[in-house]
Amino acid sequence: MAPSKRHDNHAGDGVSCEALTAVFALLGKRWSGIIIGTLMSGPSRFTEISRQVQGLSERMLSERLNELAAAGLIERTVLSGPPVGVEYRLTPRGEALRPALDELGLWATKHLSVSVGNEGS
Amino acid sequence: MAPSKRHDNHAGDGVSCEALTAVFALLGKRWSGIIIGTLMSGPSRFTEISRQVQGLSERMLSERLNELAAAGLIERTVLSGPPVGVEYRLTPRGEALRPALDELGLWATKHLSVSVGNEGS
Repeated sequence: MAPSKRHDNHAGDGVSCEALTAVFALLGKRWSGIIIGTLMSGPSRFTEISRQVQGLSERMLSERLNELAAAGLIERTVLSGPPVGVEYRLTPRGEALRPALDELGLWATKHLSVSVGNEGS
Repeated sequence: MAPSKRHDNHAGDGVSCEALTAVFALLGKRWSGIIIGTLMSGPSRFTEISRQVQGLSERMLSERLNELAAAGLIERTVLSGPPVGVEYRLTPRGEALRPALDELGLWATKHLSVSVGNEGS
């Protein structure tokens, strides 16, 4: 009930904390952003994504794909083959992330050295 | 050694998986993106950030601020006061995240309902 000087839960310039909380809750999970980034180049089969993202186990990939599908960012198509397989593609909602991921990628390329996470120790 | 069809570790259109991995390793940690978003509106004291980001403990805030400072995204200034305090501000490297966070915020506002994370169950 006490009034506080800054309690609008807004980070200024159109970036609301709530929006950032939501997007990082979704994309901040390990691998999710990278999987989306991989699908930006077009639909991919499970095995292709698995091969492309190094260090990601099939079990974890499966889990993340299910989460992203549940959030409406990707969709799953069963291919009758041959070879039989499952293909994933971005929905329009997922595709709409492209400008944001492009900006993040640009920033990372420009500002992050390879050793991020090991700095400052 | 076996050749694979897509092994360039590149997600297309300039977004490299390595860059996305690095940026999500840094910003994907819980609260980090939101703390950066908060500082986008200007330098803030520890107590102000703490008040502004709901659900974030002081211990966790302190930990995240240290990580972000170590990564060169924010800097810390001791204010001689009164009142004595510590102020945090974005470095140029942190400030350079603004276009990416703006895009993410726009996307979230447009495409995420409040119930993200509870969908699809």
